[in-house]
Formats: sequence, structure tokens, C-alpha cells
Amino acid sequence: MTGWLAIAGLGPGDDRLVTPEVTEALAQATDVVGYIPYVARITPRPGLTLHPSDNRVELDRACAALTMAAEGKRVVVVSSGDPGVFAMASAVFEALEDRPDRQSLDIRVLPGITAMLAAAAHAGAPLGHDFCCINLSDNLKPWEIIETRLRHAAKADFAMAFYNPRSASRPEGFARALDIFREECGPDRLITFARAVTTPEERITTVTLGEASPDMADMRTVVILGNSATKRVGRWVYSPRRAG
Amino acid sequence: MTGWLAIAGLGPGDDRLVTPEVTEALAQATDVVGYIPYVARITPRPGLTLHPSDNRVELDRACAALTMAAEGKRVVVVSSGDPGVFAMASAVFEALEDRPDRQSLDIRVLPGITAMLAAAAHAGAPLGHDFCCINLSDNLKPWEIIETRLRHAAKADFAMAFYNPRSASRPEGFARALDIFREECGPDRLITFARAVTTPEERITTVTLGEASPDMADMRTVVILGNSATKRVGRWVYSPRRAG
Repeated sequence: MTGWLAIAGLGPGDDRLVTPEVTEALAQATDVVGYIPYVARITPRPGLTLHPSDNRVELDRACAALTMAAEGKRVVVVSSGDPGVFAMASAVFEALEDRPDRQSLDIRVLPGITAMLAAAAHAGAPLGHDFCCINLSDNLKPWEIIETRLRHAAKADFAMAFYNPRSASRPEGFARALDIFREECGPDRLITFARAVTTPEERITTVTLGEASPDMADMRTVVILGNSATKRVGRWVYSPRRAG
Repeated sequence: MTGWLAIAGLGPGDDRLVTPEVTEALAQATDVVGYIPYVARITPRPGLTLHPSDNRVELDRACAALTMAAEGKRVVVVSSGDPGVFAMASAVFEALEDRPDRQSLDIRVLPGITAMLAAAAHAGAPLGHDFCCINLSDNLKPWEIIETRLRHAAKADFAMAFYNPRSASRPEGFARALDIFREECGPDRLITFARAVTTPEERITTVTLGEASPDMADMRTVVILGNSATKRVGRWVYSPRRAG
């Protein structure tokens, strides 16, 4: 048996957003590897071994997946959303750096619907003009870098999508981010909080920066800040195609 | 019959990247509206009317789709990639602004795999850290805004994905962009040209900015510029999760 490794995105939650390409890889797999809640989305079947693991062990998980593929297994590493956006793809390539012998393995990245695009779709089209995508977690980078990026993005008048806006271990980061946005963009700028998007618990709220408070975001929320032209129409929010 | 409008993303080209949600909407549709090459991807069937239209008539197309939905038809507006990323969703909401009477229609945006995420997946994980997404076309915004955004994005050390890097009518814009990148990022920064991604004509090339030339991009190319940490491993290119 020739082993392979597919790093696949399951989309934000709704199974109707899993691509046929990913469904096909899962149907052929012998092993599925990933963070516990994502592996829980895979239907068990004979011949398939599930390997759920805890958060923050991305490199260990990547190494284990590469080892299984090298042994001849057909391995799918699952991420929520898209594997290339703050998810497992970078971790697998990091793990490959130390193992040149494994760089000839059959490795594919299978894209998925990332949370910001599902959130934008359900809110309207707030990312319909140039935008940034920023991970607000300071686990893997110092806060100073985040702040520099937020200020440049505001001065460039990008719309912005934020992943991991808030966690129990760093409740103050998102409050600081909101202060920076108000300073750079004023109180009238629109901001959308999209929680648990495409799941039965989905809740999407758009307010102004003046009305926004840190507790509007939690670990399951993607936040989208509009640009200077972002506006409401009916029950939607969108960024016009034209600028300047 | 109760009409509705779905603004749907067909993904970058490979039918295995069309989500089941979009496939289902197309199966229920009476009318499909869109730019000629995207409508050409829809299989004709009895009961389905195809309305292909030319490029640069996005607002007319959006108005026509809203009119049909108001008349009771089940209309899918198709875009390549994701409808919310430089595609038809913003145009439909623009068209809605002048027609408050149509804001109560059943309108949904169905997300898709946007070209930059498919390109990143096939190249490795160059968007695995904070990034920007910029439309380099100056049809709808002045070049000065584009240049300001490129310089801020470079100073913030974002990876960057570029749509519409080059067209026959404005061959000089991308050459200017490359000059700015070299000035801001130096000659060793990695840049990936992903042409016709996920189609049989796919070609992905990664070079340094020193080696890059404007003719490496055409209208079917998505360009991804790495950040300062983006590197090669084996045949892939990726941006590490960690910064600073």
C-alpha cells in the first residue's frame, strides 16, 4: 500500500460546505488525525482509525501524521475551515523541515471554506473590497506585532477579518484591539460579530465601533471590521466594489 | 411559486471544489445568471434558463437577477471562486440600495473556495500567517490607493494575495507593483504565480522577487507574495505560524 497525507479543510461547521474533494479523501483514508472537536465530525467506519488530539500539540500531530503516511497509511489531517488559514497546513510543513527523507511523500493540501468567508456570506459582503485576515491570538507572536499590523491595516483602509479574537487566557487583547480600531477608524465604523457560523447556534450581529464591547466575541466568533465605505443595506452589511 | 436569489461561488474551476450547498441551489434553480465563462460551467437541463452576460456589466446583471427573483423565479447568480471576494455579492447589494422594495426578498450568499486559498493549498501554505487580499485592478479604484495599500501591507509584514494582477488594458500596473515589492521587501522575498489553479492548465511557480517579471502573471493568475519568514521546504512554500 502506498501511503499519502492529505491536509483537509472541513469548512466552518455545516456539512453542506465540505467539498466533494475532501469527502472523497476521507472515504479513502485509513487514518484521520486532528484536534478533538474536528475529528468528532468524522463518521466512524470499519477500516478507519480516528486519532483525536488536544489543542496546541500541532507539531506533534503533524509528525505523527507524517510517520503514518511514511508507513503506508492513507492519512487525512483535518482542520476546521481551510487548512492553510491559521490551521494545520503550516504545522505539517514545519514538521517536514526536520525530515528531508519525508519530503518525497505524497502530500496534498485540500482547501476548505474558511470561517471568514462563511461569516461574510451570511452577513452580506463585508469583504467585497481589499481586506486583511489577522489572527489576534498572541500565542505565536508578540502583541506589538499585532498592534503594528492593526494600525497599518487601518491606515490602508482595509476591511479586516479576525480569527481567535478572544480566549479565557487572554481576555484583554481584544479590548485593546477595539481601542485601536476606535482610535484609527472612529466610532461609526461597522463591525460584525459572527458566532458559530453555519451551525445551529449561529448568531451574527453588526454594530458600530462605538457600540462594540469585548464580550461580544468569544472563542467561536469571527469578527469582521468594515472599511471606511462599508455600509448597511436592508438586513445586510457590505463593502462596495469601488473606492476613492 | 416563491422566488429567491442565491449568490453562489463555483470555486476556482475543479468541480470537486463546488460545495454541496451550491450544487443543491443549482438543482432547485429556474434561472442562472452570470459572466459567460462561469455560466458555461453549468450543465443545461429542462426547466433551467441560462443567462450568460459579458464582463463589466455586474450591476445590470444584479438588477436583472433581483427582478427575476421578485417575479417568483429561483435565481442563482454564479461567480467563480467565492461570491464575496471581488465578485457578484457586493454588486447585488449595491443594486439593492436603490430598491428598498426588494430588500425583503429571500437572498442568500453561498460561499465558495476562492482562488487564493486553492492557490495557497497547491503551493503549500504561503497564507499560513496574517495576510492581505488585494485586487490589483484599477478599474474601480485609483492606482494611488493600491500603492498606499501595498506599502502599508509590506510594512506590516503581511503575506499578500493578489487578484487581477494584469490585463491587456493595463499591462504596466503589475510591473509597478513588483517595483514597490522589491523596494519594500528586497530581492530575496518569495513570490508565487498560480495560473489556472485546479484546472488542467494549472501551473504554479515560486521565484524570488529578484527573479520575478511582469509577464509571469496574466488574467488567469493569482499571485501570492510571502512575508519575511516565508520559506521553501521540499517542493512547497509556506509561512510559519510563529512570528517575532
